[in-house]
Amino acid sequence: MKPDINSPIVVVIGGGFGGIAAVQALAKAPVNVVLVDKANHHLFQPLLYQVATSVLPTSNIAFPIRRIFRQQENAYVFNEEVVSIDCAAHLLTFANNRNAHFDYLILAAGARSSYFGNDHWEQFAPGMKTLDDALTIRNKILRAFEDAEAETDEVALREHLTFIVVGGGPTGVELAGAIKELGVDSLSKDYRRFNSKSARVILIEAGNRLLPSMSERSSHAAFLALSKIGVEIRLSQSVTHIDESGVVVNGETIHANTVVWSAGVKANPLGASLGAKLDRNGRVLVEPDCSIKGASNIFVIGDMASIQCAKTGHMVPGVAPAATQMGQFVAKIIAREVKTGTKMTARGAFQYFDKGSMATIGRAQAVAEVAGLKFAGLLAWLAWLFVHLILLVGFNNRILVFMSWAISYLTFSKGSRIISGNPPSRVVVPVGSSVNDSPSQRNKVVAELLKRM
Amino acid sequence: MKPDINSPIVVVIGGGFGGIAAVQALAKAPVNVVLVDKANHHLFQPLLYQVATSVLPTSNIAFPIRRIFRQQENAYVFNEEVVSIDCAAHLLTFANNRNAHFDYLILAAGARSSYFGNDHWEQFAPGMKTLDDALTIRNKILRAFEDAEAETDEVALREHLTFIVVGGGPTGVELAGAIKELGVDSLSKDYRRFNSKSARVILIEAGNRLLPSMSERSSHAAFLALSKIGVEIRLSQSVTHIDESGVVVNGETIHANTVVWSAGVKANPLGASLGAKLDRNGRVLVEPDCSIKGASNIFVIGDMASIQCAKTGHMVPGVAPAATQMGQFVAKIIAREVKTGTKMTARGAFQYFDKGSMATIGRAQAVAEVAGLKFAGLLAWLAWLFVHLILLVGFNNRILVFMSWAISYLTFSKGSRIISGNPPSRVVVPVGSSVNDSPSQRNKVVAELLKRM
Repeated sequence: MKPDINSPIVVVIGGGFGGIAAVQALAKAPVNVVLVDKANHHLFQPLLYQVATSVLPTSNIAFPIRRIFRQQENAYVFNEEVVSIDCAAHLLTFANNRNAHFDYLILAAGARSSYFGNDHWEQFAPGMKTLDDALTIRNKILRAFEDAEAETDEVALREHLTFIVVGGGPTGVELAGAIKELGVDSLSKDYRRFNSKSARVILIEAGNRLLPSMSERSSHAAFLALSKIGVEIRLSQSVTHIDESGVVVNGETIHANTVVWSAGVKANPLGASLGAKLDRNGRVLVEPDCSIKGASNIFVIGDMASIQCAKTGHMVPGVAPAATQMGQFVAKIIAREVKTGTKMTARGAFQYFDKGSMATIGRAQAVAEVAGLKFAGLLAWLAWLFVHLILLVGFNNRILVFMSWAISYLTFSKGSRIISGNPPSRVVVPVGSSVNDSPSQRNKVVAELLKRM
Repeated sequence: MKPDINSPIVVVIGGGFGGIAAVQALAKAPVNVVLVDKANHHLFQPLLYQVATSVLPTSNIAFPIRRIFRQQENAYVFNEEVVSIDCAAHLLTFANNRNAHFDYLILAAGARSSYFGNDHWEQFAPGMKTLDDALTIRNKILRAFEDAEAETDEVALREHLTFIVVGGGPTGVELAGAIKELGVDSLSKDYRRFNSKSARVILIEAGNRLLPSMSERSSHAAFLALSKIGVEIRLSQSVTHIDESGVVVNGETIHANTVVWSAGVKANPLGASLGAKLDRNGRVLVEPDCSIKGASNIFVIGDMASIQCAKTGHMVPGVAPAATQMGQFVAKIIAREVKTGTKMTARGAFQYFDKGSMATIGRAQAVAEVAGLKFAGLLAWLAWLFVHLILLVGFNNRILVFMSWAISYLTFSKGSRIISGNPPSRVVVPVGSSVNDSPSQRNKVVAELLKRM
């Protein structure tokens, strides 16, 4: 649509799956669409765990938002942070205290990690929602192996080589598998003083099965596949404490230098400034048309919305396809109302179409549930690869990710094993006796050599 | 060489071109080689400017050091920082206060940016020596364009879109060309409120020509090529002041939000702890065999060494091939002495073999001087591409860099336009009147639209 100064302004907050879909679906509507995001990129979160485990560089799963809308003439992108919303006045406030007017608002600012009231755990067990989160985790994992190489104390060595993932949903399952694989495949020839294959990866899930959003059959398949590659899985066990030395789970202390949190999310706190009711995860309880009570021009979608599917009555899950569908749904309502110039009396109710779900478990293993079919193993893995390549934004990223995957699969090596940021600040001990899982002549020599250092 | 506990220990500090070459050249010597670097990766610095200008992701030009020596049985890698050296006691001290013994030491810790006594300029004009430096500069450049999109004041808009590069050596020339190209090619369709082609790139060089290390003919070719794509070049002009608002050059103040420093380097300060004489750039004045006076088992190589070529009498330049050659040269001396068990009385003097030099200037343009031949233009650019691909460490990186270059060349788009780190903290104004270079209907509409925001 050619831009027209007299057209209404639709502001979309958030450039995730929901926000992008909404702006795209408004391309032919007689509106001006303003997309505001504090990041300059759309992030393909389903592959974030591959950044955290050195498979992909950050730029392969992030795409400049304004590039997506280069051709869409009625779309404007601002790289800003919105801090509050005045529903009655139709005004946003930015971090710089300026205001902006909207005729329609689509709030799609996503979710962040939730520690269920234990926010102080975050410093010890980072979550994984943004690129920076993934880099923090990548640094922690790679640093742990480096620290192990310089460690002389056997107990401390074990702690360096113990990785705990809290939460057995798709992110936790994929991350645990990928960390174990890193030790088994990619790093196994690179260290002299320990066997990286012996790195412990412990996956803790409070529920009685992995992947609770999938079928029991898929849960079982994921459990077996992870067990087979050596991940220790603890079901029905709750984490009650996390600090720099590790976690307490079911009363047992497990010492570990690396703990990653994937046990829960809460909605972006911006939802609170709407004055609408929130659920216990901070999500806005929206009307069946995704608008909020008393303000029919304000919609909340994606991970920020708490809504039941009008068809099944089930809660709509916090997944990318749901956000995309909500974005398209509300865009259609807005387009129709703007074209007709009247508020619709019956807007219809959002129906979630479940396209299925899948999760990878390391090399050539995955579980998938698509259109009633449940499958696991190589076929599921190939399906997973295909779907994720297709869904990635940007033709170039698809090529580069495909290349990285091919290299990673064929050579067992990970292309992004880079520790970024400042030099090591922790105190480590690059001397002394060595600890070996399978003592070899080489290891003995290294140990002696280092004793002399 | 199989490791042997009784073999001497050669410690190499620094995993740059010199250090890597030295360790590799000692592969068959009866020694234990310990490579210490505070980073976990070898950095291919010649392509750092492509990370700073969003062409390549960081991981494509960085390679895990320990991966390089996976197969070399007498090599050990530690990811640690060395803080001082005791020549008499043959001891190193690490940042964690532990000591380590060496029989031979090769100091190859490289150089960093030098501000010629104006270290406070660094906060306003970052240099470009590490991956983090390149990311800092990438963030600054991309942020400047984002800030411009949200700017209402014409003067401030100009400042966002003014980029100053200080120093006309290869890094400055390549960076200036790449920034200009970013505005002209890659971003030109992405912004609505200004024409990114109008971004000013100013390259300031205190000497009377660009690329002073190359021939006058190449300097001239580089000048013409940069001028043609619109870079403003100021020769024989000195920067006397830098702050957050811009630079003062030859008494004139140029306001700019982005200033990058590539005007000089100084050696890693670790050289000072040797007690040897330093030149004004902090480089160690070494003997003709690269050892230091009074300690024939300690060598300084690469950017840290100040040495004349034994053949030409010219100072050996601070470039990658010189570092590599010095690393190989000193490794041979050590290998010979260890094998024979005696200190050589005549070790020979280091001769630098100049393989030539080259620099790119944006799209399909470069200057090159190889084996007495001087050429410019497309041929030089192709030569540059070929040589840099060959020299990159890691087959996988070669493939991925080649793919990124092909995509970048064919689609005019840059694959790594990601602003990392925290959300915008600066105060910007996302409303008000607009400034256009070529006012179009669209721009007017955007301006009006934003006035209403």
